[in-house]
Amino acid sequence: MKKRDHFQRLNVDHLLRNHKLPEPVFVARPTMPKLADYCEKLTGIWERRWLTNDGQLHRELEHRLAEYLGVDHLALFCNGAIALMVALQTLRIDGGEVITTPFTFPATAHVLHWNRIRPVFCDIEANTFNLDANRIEQLISPETKAILPVHVYGTPCNVEAIRKVADSHGLRVIYDAAHAFGVRYKGQSVLTHGDLSMLSFHATKLFTTGEGGALVCQSEAQKKRIDFLKNFGIADEETVIGPGINGKMSEFQAALGLLQLDMVDEEIANRRNLAKSYQNGLKDIAGISFLKDVPDVQHNYAYFPILVDEKNYGINRDELFALLKLFNVHPRKYFYPLCSHFSCYSSLPSADPARLPLAERVARQVLCLPIYGTLENGIVETICNILMKIHEEHYLE
Amino acid sequence: MKKRDHFQRLNVDHLLRNHKLPEPVFVARPTMPKLADYCEKLTGIWERRWLTNDGQLHRELEHRLAEYLGVDHLALFCNGAIALMVALQTLRIDGGEVITTPFTFPATAHVLHWNRIRPVFCDIEANTFNLDANRIEQLISPETKAILPVHVYGTPCNVEAIRKVADSHGLRVIYDAAHAFGVRYKGQSVLTHGDLSMLSFHATKLFTTGEGGALVCQSEAQKKRIDFLKNFGIADEETVIGPGINGKMSEFQAALGLLQLDMVDEEIANRRNLAKSYQNGLKDIAGISFLKDVPDVQHNYAYFPILVDEKNYGINRDELFALLKLFNVHPRKYFYPLCSHFSCYSSLPSADPARLPLAERVARQVLCLPIYGTLENGIVETICNILMKIHEEHYLE
Repeated sequence: MKKRDHFQRLNVDHLLRNHKLPEPVFVARPTMPKLADYCEKLTGIWERRWLTNDGQLHRELEHRLAEYLGVDHLALFCNGAIALMVALQTLRIDGGEVITTPFTFPATAHVLHWNRIRPVFCDIEANTFNLDANRIEQLISPETKAILPVHVYGTPCNVEAIRKVADSHGLRVIYDAAHAFGVRYKGQSVLTHGDLSMLSFHATKLFTTGEGGALVCQSEAQKKRIDFLKNFGIADEETVIGPGINGKMSEFQAALGLLQLDMVDEEIANRRNLAKSYQNGLKDIAGISFLKDVPDVQHNYAYFPILVDEKNYGINRDELFALLKLFNVHPRKYFYPLCSHFSCYSSLPSADPARLPLAERVARQVLCLPIYGTLENGIVETICNILMKIHEEHYLE
Repeated sequence: MKKRDHFQRLNVDHLLRNHKLPEPVFVARPTMPKLADYCEKLTGIWERRWLTNDGQLHRELEHRLAEYLGVDHLALFCNGAIALMVALQTLRIDGGEVITTPFTFPATAHVLHWNRIRPVFCDIEANTFNLDANRIEQLISPETKAILPVHVYGTPCNVEAIRKVADSHGLRVIYDAAHAFGVRYKGQSVLTHGDLSMLSFHATKLFTTGEGGALVCQSEAQKKRIDFLKNFGIADEETVIGPGINGKMSEFQAALGLLQLDMVDEEIANRRNLAKSYQNGLKDIAGISFLKDVPDVQHNYAYFPILVDEKNYGINRDELFALLKLFNVHPRKYFYPLCSHFSCYSSLPSADPARLPLAERVARQVLCLPIYGTLENGIVETICNILMKIHEEHYLE
C-alpha cells in the first residue's frame, strides 16, 4: 500500500452515506434503574425527612458497597475529587511533594494543590499507561511525602513494585482508583492496596450516584477520622478535630447507588462483550492499538482507549477525532492535555516534556471510544468498520 | 422573687408530666414537596440520561433562583462550603489573612485554611451577633486580603460600614450568607452586597436541595470564572485555567430546588408566624432575650436563637439545654464553641478570648429553638411555656 499524497485528499462523503450513525453516540451514558424503583427508594427519605448527614440509605450503601467490592472500610463522599482531598488530609500530608502521573484527569493534580503539595510528575508505562514504578525512585527528594498513582482506565498499577519503593522510603501510597470500580487483581479487590483508594461515582462512571465518590481505607480508626473530616472535622457537638470539609453524600445519591449496585454485574458483563467486539473489530487495522487484558486481572471495561499511530493509520488522532464526529461518533481525548501542560503546573521541573516521553506520546495518540452497558453491539461493529474504512481511504490499492 | 439555693434543687417531674412533647422536636426539619411531584421532575433526567455537569434543570434553577432572589448572577454548587472555597479562589485570595467572625459554623474558618489563609477573628455586635464593623480596622495588617463576614441567623451585617472600611483599605468582601436566603435589606437582596455571597441549601436550611449551595456574584465574567473553577478549572476540552475543584450540583439536587422554590414563600410566612409566637411567648421571661426584627430588613426567620442569662433566668444555657431534651425539645447550641476555640485556630493571637468578649458571652448563652415551616404553632407555645415554668421553678414566690 502507498499512502495518498496531499493531492489525493480524503473524501469521506461516500463513507458518511453508508456508515453515519443515525443518532450521536457519546463516550459514556449512565445505565439507570427504573424510575419507579428509584421513587420507591425515596419513600423512606420522605418519611424520615432525613436528607443527608449519615442517613439510613447512606449507611446501607456504605455497608453493601464494602461487601460488594471486598474491602473492610469505605466512606462515601459527595464526589471523588473531594474524597481525594480528604485522603491527603486523613494522612496529614500537607505540603511537600507527592509523586504522581501526568496522564490523568485534572482532579488528581488539583487535590495536591489544595493540600499545599507540589506535584512531581512521573512518566508512564507503555503497556498500561500507568505511572511507571521503575521511575519513582529517581524522583524522590527529602520533600517527598507520598505516591499518588492512578489505575488508569481501571488497569491496576504495578502495586507490588509501588509498595516496595514506598516501604523502602517510608512513603504513603494513595491510589486514585476513580476508574477501578470492581477491578480485582490476583483474586482480591485492587482497592486493598495502598493506604487509601479513591473511587468516583460520577455520571460517566460504570457505577454512578450522579455525582459521588468514596474513600476505601484500611482500618476502623482511619474510617472514623475520614467521617469526621468529611463533616467539617466535627467529632461531636462540641469538638472539631481539624479543618475538615463538606464531603457528605446525600440520601438521594445513596438511593441511586443502592439500585446501581443491583445492576453493576450486568453492566460490567455488557461492557466486557462490547470490549471483545472492539478488540475483534480493531485488531487488523494498521496503526490502531489498544490495551490487552492483563493476566491475573478481572477488568471492569470502564473505558475503551485506542492509540492512533499516524504513520501506519494514515491520519493522526486529532484528525480522526474530528472525522468521527461527522459520523456521529463522539469519542474523548482522555487524557489530553497532560496535567503537566496546565499553566498552573507547566513550570514545574518535573513537567518538562522531555522527562515524560511516553506520557507525551500516549496523550497525543489516545482516543477513548464509546462504551457503556446499554450500547448496542452493532454500533460497536459500525464504529470499528468506520475506523477501518477511514484507514483504507488513506491508502491506494 | 428569691432564687432557690442549692438545697432546693429543681424538680421537673411534675412539669414533665404536664408539658413533655409526645414526639421529639428537632431544631430543623425540611419541608418537602410531594414525592410524586419530585418523581415527575425526574422524568426528564431519565429521558436525557444527563445527571450532572450543567444539565437542563441546573440551568433552570440558576435562572429561576437569580430571579427569585433578585440578583444578576448565581452559580449552583454541591454544597455551601465548597462554594465558599471557590469564592476565595475566584478572587485569587490565596494566602495572607482574612478578617472573619468566630461566631459561625466551622466551614467559615475552614475554607480559609484550604486557601492557605490565616483567619483573623473579629468580635461581634451585641444586637445582631454579626461581625462588628467598628472593630475591623484595628485588625488590618499588611497581610490582610479580605473580610469574610457572616449574616448570622440571616440578620444582615452592617453592610455599609463594612463596605466603607473595605474600600478604604482595598479589601475584598465575601459574605457567608448561608443563613440569608431571601433576606432583603432596604428593598433589595442582601446578596447584592460584597464581591461575592455564598448560600447554603443544606437540609437544615429553609430552602434545601438536600446538600447544596450557591455563589452570588456581580458580573458575567465572575460567573464564567466560577463555572470553570467548580468544574476542575476546565474552560474547554483542552484548557484548564487553574486548580479548580468539583463543586458541581447534580440534576437530582436541582430538581428538588425547583420544587422548593415554589414553596419557599409559604415556608418563610409560616416561620414568620412561629417567630412571632416565640417573641410573644418569651417576652416576659426574665433572663431570656432574643433578636428583635430590624427596621429596613425583610427577615427570613431561618433560626430562632435565644440568649440565656443565668443570673436572671435561674439556670445556665447548658443546664437548660439538658433539661429541654427531657421535654423532647432538641435545640442546638449554634454557635458553640466559637471557631476560635478549635484546636486548629486557638493558638492564633486573634483567637484570644480576651479579645472576643461579646462572641464569648453569646456563644456561652445562645440556644437555637426549633423553627421550621411545618412546626405547629401549639408546639411553639408549649416550648415557651416550658421555658417559663423552668424559670419559675428556680424562684420561690
